[in-house]
Amino acid sequence: MITIVAKGVVKEENINKFKEYAQTLVEETRKEKGCISYNLYEDINDPKIITFIEEWEDQEAIDAHVKASHFVEIVPKLRDLQESETEVNLYKRV
Amino acid sequence: MITIVAKGVVKEENINKFKEYAQTLVEETRKEKGCISYNLYEDINDPKIITFIEEWEDQEAIDAHVKASHFVEIVPKLRDLQESETEVNLYKRV
Repeated sequence: MITIVAKGVVKEENINKFKEYAQTLVEETRKEKGCISYNLYEDINDPKIITFIEEWEDQEAIDAHVKASHFVEIVPKLRDLQESETEVNLYKRV
Repeated sequence: MITIVAKGVVKEENINKFKEYAQTLVEETRKEKGCISYNLYEDINDPKIITFIEEWEDQEAIDAHVKASHFVEIVPKLRDLQESETEVNLYKRV
């Protein structure tokens, strides 16, 4: 299993739009083969910090995910709403 | 529910010691009231990046956690093995 944490800082005026686009991404991604869980989180102390925590069966599932039409269409829109680059880490359980 | 992501960068020579201390922290923390899950992860591409992902019932459980003897004893030791401060975010599900 691979766990991904993808943390972004969204421009304050774009928070609602970001959540709206992200919601579609969440719904479509959960239907993908190899997606164990895929959830969106907001920092309790700073609503501009919005993070995906994702669990995938293997790298093959992630490779397919980043080519899926919902990913290709929505992720660039999310990036445009952010203040800075997304911080992405791929993890294995220790 | 509150999800915590606590990301640290460990000095290369300290990685094994960090995991050893962290393992005790994981075992003891999982016994705590209000702890839903508590897991340790290592970045697939950089083993110096070690991250806790934690799920807690509420803030009260977190307040008790940071006062627990295993936390008070082990966390300062973990910090001493790191290159930099831990990046901690407390999240709610969107």
